[in-house]
Amino acid sequence: MTTTGRQLVSTLSQDGTLVLELQEHDFPEPTGNQVLVRMEAAPINPSDLFLMTTGADLENAEYFPGKIEMQLHPQVAAAQSSRHGKPQTVGNEGAGTVVAAGDDEMAQALLGQRVACVPGNAFSEYAIADAMMCIPLGEHTAEQGASSFVNPMTALGFVETAKREGHDAMIHAAAASNLGQMLNRICQEDGMVLVNIVRREEQASLLKDQGASHTVNSSDDDFEKQLAGAIGETKAFLGFDPIGGGTTTDTCLRAMERVAAKDMSEYSRYGSDQAKKMYIYGRLDLSPTILTPSYGFGWTISGWLLMPFLASCDMPTLMSLRTRIVDGLTSTFASSYKARVGLEGMLTKDAITDYAQMATGEKYLVTPQN
Amino acid sequence: MTTTGRQLVSTLSQDGTLVLELQEHDFPEPTGNQVLVRMEAAPINPSDLFLMTTGADLENAEYFPGKIEMQLHPQVAAAQSSRHGKPQTVGNEGAGTVVAAGDDEMAQALLGQRVACVPGNAFSEYAIADAMMCIPLGEHTAEQGASSFVNPMTALGFVETAKREGHDAMIHAAAASNLGQMLNRICQEDGMVLVNIVRREEQASLLKDQGASHTVNSSDDDFEKQLAGAIGETKAFLGFDPIGGGTTTDTCLRAMERVAAKDMSEYSRYGSDQAKKMYIYGRLDLSPTILTPSYGFGWTISGWLLMPFLASCDMPTLMSLRTRIVDGLTSTFASSYKARVGLEGMLTKDAITDYAQMATGEKYLVTPQN
Repeated sequence: MTTTGRQLVSTLSQDGTLVLELQEHDFPEPTGNQVLVRMEAAPINPSDLFLMTTGADLENAEYFPGKIEMQLHPQVAAAQSSRHGKPQTVGNEGAGTVVAAGDDEMAQALLGQRVACVPGNAFSEYAIADAMMCIPLGEHTAEQGASSFVNPMTALGFVETAKREGHDAMIHAAAASNLGQMLNRICQEDGMVLVNIVRREEQASLLKDQGASHTVNSSDDDFEKQLAGAIGETKAFLGFDPIGGGTTTDTCLRAMERVAAKDMSEYSRYGSDQAKKMYIYGRLDLSPTILTPSYGFGWTISGWLLMPFLASCDMPTLMSLRTRIVDGLTSTFASSYKARVGLEGMLTKDAITDYAQMATGEKYLVTPQN
Repeated sequence: MTTTGRQLVSTLSQDGTLVLELQEHDFPEPTGNQVLVRMEAAPINPSDLFLMTTGADLENAEYFPGKIEMQLHPQVAAAQSSRHGKPQTVGNEGAGTVVAAGDDEMAQALLGQRVACVPGNAFSEYAIADAMMCIPLGEHTAEQGASSFVNPMTALGFVETAKREGHDAMIHAAAASNLGQMLNRICQEDGMVLVNIVRREEQASLLKDQGASHTVNSSDDDFEKQLAGAIGETKAFLGFDPIGGGTTTDTCLRAMERVAAKDMSEYSRYGSDQAKKMYIYGRLDLSPTILTPSYGFGWTISGWLLMPFLASCDMPTLMSLRTRIVDGLTSTFASSYKARVGLEGMLTKDAITDYAQMATGEKYLVTPQN
């Protein structure tokens, strides 16, 4: 028996036209390890927006009920040539109730339960999910469980990555985000010292109120000096940058080198021996990353993505991360939302121009059944 | 008994004035494991030029016999604030004859021998060197042995790095340099497939004549397509870039991604899973490195320096690299020079404006006794 429901589909044409549209879809009977989830809540994460609004002219788009037609910036459209003409579902994660299950034991055990899942089409009335990847939410609401995968696993992944690489301090840019607040809590629990970079004084206060020991404001005139001061105190020679474009990563590396150079007994044209590393895990700024030649050769910059990180974990580690998330769903891993919209509501001009800005602390939640 | 001789000294003042000057220096009697080398030949490598000409206004400099006074670009001068007022000797490597030795057996054994060494003041009549780091040259001339450390160890280091990281193919930019030609020979000996990026057709021909299987010309209109073609054939997802500034590294990563994306069954907003890596080992271009958001998150860029690489090798590996270099000094590891200059000769306007260009295949050799 198939189940019919609407889901959001993003289609980019070769001419640069991007269509976001709710389409009726037939969800097949789940088999094997699959479950069919009636979706109740799904967050709009920056990673979802890449398929929805990145490079798009939202101002001059055409808005219809359940449909938006817009033009992408030619360079952005060209860079995505491999998806031209191929409809993409949207929505990494969400929560809902399992209404049908495949024959496998693990799938059957979830029948009737509320779960968090990572179906890739979370902006939908229904979704097929892998039972292995579902997290049973118990008494938690769908809203409480909607963001229990991407941000929590990412924040935990940063700390795990830092530990693996031998660090006990790290920098985080755009640190007042939902993810950043979560990371701030995790780091305090784990004894990882965190240097938070924010853009506004209110954001610094917010994080300090939540126990942050080190915050620096990139809008201050002496930002780089403040940052070097915090690095000097904490020895944070590793950082995570969701902005990507521009000079955030460059500034962090330069501040790290400033601290390291102070400890050098003689000048070296090659810079200090101190290893300095930045991970770029997002592209809030799509302009090019700029690296100045001002910190020698002892540095590494790398992309960081959740899925390869998870693939690098063994099963006991994964299970313990998952358990930790469920246990902290309303505390350490709680998310907050600015607004709730239905599937049609997320496609209005007011809503999309607002959430497309990815303003810190202004996340939207999609409630597909409303 | 001290020995007196002239050596080149580079001093940067806070006001941005850089003085290159031959100064009389008293070299003390060598002790312990030290040897005193009467320097006969030393190459001017790009890494030496950093202390001599980087950011300098050579056109409007003042030239005296054995002395140049010039102004550095303010940003370059500021970036080197930690050496303001501190005289630096210049010249990484060279060859000469051991004229005095400390008491240790290893030092004594070198007495009277011609050796290659890495004293850090090779542009000098004499140099104190560590016997452990000296390579006895046997019947080779000083000119043959002058470049037996930096370029050979660096080229061998690239291949060793590639092997350690599981690669059997790699890209090299500015590949017609002395170092590049050496790397081309080593790769053929070791079965490492090398994709050579050059800027001119003659350079491509030169490398092909020396057995190169893959060369691409960055001046061609379809350069990036050619590069992707070569990466597709060789699976070179690792590269070494001595240019640093501008878009060389970016272009390599994008071409790698183009190849990797072809093998993907579905579109991913995060790019391919193929790990892509570039090492920046020089800064022939001091302008910022530009990274476009066009190859997802599966990439790493890292500085590469010889000394940390050598520090990562165990003693047997180091000894085998050394033996291989001596055995191949007139074949695999041979260097060629455009011109020979004495200590005063290297400080003339004609000479310095020429070698400061670091033109491919136009290396200078300093002969301090002439």
